[in-house]
Amino acid sequence: MDEDAGGIVLFVGTIRNQTNGKKVKGLEYEVYRRMAERQIAKLEKEIRKRWPIKSIRLVHREGKLKVGEVSVVVAVSAVHREEAFEAARYAIDRVKESFPIWKRERLRRGRYAWVKGTPIQSYPASDRSISEPQTNPREIVRPRTRSLVEA
Amino acid sequence: MDEDAGGIVLFVGTIRNQTNGKKVKGLEYEVYRRMAERQIAKLEKEIRKRWPIKSIRLVHREGKLKVGEVSVVVAVSAVHREEAFEAARYAIDRVKESFPIWKRERLRRGRYAWVKGTPIQSYPASDRSISEPQTNPREIVRPRTRSLVEA
Repeated sequence: MDEDAGGIVLFVGTIRNQTNGKKVKGLEYEVYRRMAERQIAKLEKEIRKRWPIKSIRLVHREGKLKVGEVSVVVAVSAVHREEAFEAARYAIDRVKESFPIWKRERLRRGRYAWVKGTPIQSYPASDRSISEPQTNPREIVRPRTRSLVEA
Repeated sequence: MDEDAGGIVLFVGTIRNQTNGKKVKGLEYEVYRRMAERQIAKLEKEIRKRWPIKSIRLVHREGKLKVGEVSVVVAVSAVHREEAFEAARYAIDRVKESFPIWKRERLRRGRYAWVKGTPIQSYPASDRSISEPQTNPREIVRPRTRSLVEA
């Protein structure tokens, strides 16, 4: 870690066991990976421009996840805590509202339901990552992103 | 962890290698432990009243710490991320502005300097934790606080 950073803010999103009172056993994330990676890179760049932060790292998983599992992590380090809090909050809000990531809830008896209110955008129908979603949870990380904890 | 929590916000404060351009080799925290524990308990209670959070945990270290070491951790879990962000931010701001924790900077050649602007309050001069500060970094934790990560 940078020795002139005074604070790290981490947001860890986890899979809840219910939404609006309805029992949920897990979630499945479908990700338009190529565009998601591009958007992560763009968001990190935007945040670095707006706040004098030291490092930022954003990870979202895809595929099937159980209740309690981590779905998304945002980590920001900065000289002062104000910047770290603001940038982390901004990052997760943007991911939730506009990233090409859809989720299906796994309900009882093996049923699934798409979650309302997740972002809808138009993509070429031929894109393989949409028509053949991955079912293993994997990390989506921008390869060139510097890791927050480097020591 | 609570299975109905959807997000955790962690703030991790670390020792910086400089303040206002002045090189720092480390810090020493002096803590009025009895009152700090009482204030942690009070702050946690206040936060639970203001935000519908699931868990909160606050840890501050005392004694000598080197650059890069963790000095304070705030962890909050909640059903929704907004509450977790707001409560964590509020908690660390309160700790920094009003807790009976003083810090001395360790400069070059073994010199020390009290850091200006740290909170000053009057305490009975007979209190041992002030006249004989502990030099081993230790955690100050309210014993009855539930751990955030319980699984």
